[in-house]
Amino acid sequence: MTQPVVGDAFGEMIRDAYAVHTGTGPRPLAGGRYPRPVIEVIERDDGLINGALADHYLSEPTDWRPFDHRAAGMCRGRVLDIGVGAGRIAVELQQRGFAVTGLDTSQGAIEVSRRRGLRDTVLNTVDEFSRATVRYDTFLLLGNNLGLIEGPERAPVFLAALARLAVPGARIIAQGTDPYGTTDPVHVGYHEANRARGRLGGQLRLRLRYRELASDWFDYLNCSVEELSALLKGTSWRLTSIDDRDHPYYLAVMEYTG
Amino acid sequence: MTQPVVGDAFGEMIRDAYAVHTGTGPRPLAGGRYPRPVIEVIERDDGLINGALADHYLSEPTDWRPFDHRAAGMCRGRVLDIGVGAGRIAVELQQRGFAVTGLDTSQGAIEVSRRRGLRDTVLNTVDEFSRATVRYDTFLLLGNNLGLIEGPERAPVFLAALARLAVPGARIIAQGTDPYGTTDPVHVGYHEANRARGRLGGQLRLRLRYRELASDWFDYLNCSVEELSALLKGTSWRLTSIDDRDHPYYLAVMEYTG
Repeated sequence: MTQPVVGDAFGEMIRDAYAVHTGTGPRPLAGGRYPRPVIEVIERDDGLINGALADHYLSEPTDWRPFDHRAAGMCRGRVLDIGVGAGRIAVELQQRGFAVTGLDTSQGAIEVSRRRGLRDTVLNTVDEFSRATVRYDTFLLLGNNLGLIEGPERAPVFLAALARLAVPGARIIAQGTDPYGTTDPVHVGYHEANRARGRLGGQLRLRLRYRELASDWFDYLNCSVEELSALLKGTSWRLTSIDDRDHPYYLAVMEYTG
Repeated sequence: MTQPVVGDAFGEMIRDAYAVHTGTGPRPLAGGRYPRPVIEVIERDDGLINGALADHYLSEPTDWRPFDHRAAGMCRGRVLDIGVGAGRIAVELQQRGFAVTGLDTSQGAIEVSRRRGLRDTVLNTVDEFSRATVRYDTFLLLGNNLGLIEGPERAPVFLAALARLAVPGARIIAQGTDPYGTTDPVHVGYHEANRARGRLGGQLRLRLRYRELASDWFDYLNCSVEELSALLKGTSWRLTSIDDRDHPYYLAVMEYTG
């Protein structure tokens, strides 16, 4: 089999999802005839594959999960939405009067966020962007984006970049998933294999695929609260609260101590 | 990346789709919490991937595409539904009083068809089943299953197997897709690459993937009516009508001349 082309798979998917959502511009049709929903395909390095409807990236607040509302309610000051996607959270915060910046490494995601009205966007990694002089009060890692801390090697580097962008007392509001409640042997076996090679159990190795495109392989961390606490040791971030009312999903608030 | 396990990916998908559809038995939940739709992932050998909602395999006649109704209306006598899937068409024909056999190579598909009430099922290839003494008046290749003729090498073998099962005057009612109307470079380029290696343009090389499982790679033919006519030459089947009111989808009726 030919390997897919490496490119902005996420962005192309978001562009198509936006076209379907708004009914504007070229959009996927089966046989050039029937509308087809846009589907995100996520491949794990053990061969597992999952498809999921992409329209949740465009969901209105009325369709958000409860923890998204609670997270949005905790924002204060200037907000950096990391992995802004289609701007679902950031556009709503902007409407509520927050000064919010949407950051993403996907050009397609940034384009769609802007078309949806988000004024302040950054196409960059947090590492590069942390050389900027702007400072934030709130960092958002929603839509499971606590996963962006990747694992034990990357987490301190990622958190140091956020520290460079933080005002005193700044907070990270992150939504994570505890992966260890499952009894599914496909997942339990994956966690064990991960640990056997020195990784955290829920340190997923993934790539996104959309049509002919694939992302590069990347790590994405589903971790327990205990694992998160351990990852924060030695960084300038302190865990101040956990809201796990929607277990296995949780909201973690981390405060800048630097 | 580890390759997925080869197994009954289609059957596992149909089992999950049936569980979601009926709300019975174990079914996929995101985070063990939120229902998730069952999605079929189809991978092409050029790296293209597509996800599609699986629930159309369980659709009721009120949700069928128009050509499915016209195809069902052309049935007569004993019916063999080839690639019966979840029994969508066969169960309805049985209710209309037809003697219908559902054949599939997927154990999961046969199980779900039986649970949905289909009485006569065969877990087999057409080749093996054609040694049986039963004879049919109508062969159905619906849900795009004209594709099962695969290509120039396989088509005469497949059609000979059906001939062994045919009464005089028997008919194949097949739904196909003409792939050549598209201007999408991903597809046009694939057609050209196929021809360059001596295949028909729309001779797709595919595999299904569902969670940790993949099917074997198989050929699946999307062909024009002209290509279909050429493939019938030298076989004991004669093209008697084409209904392309829903272009690029069409219904082809082929009559047994043996």
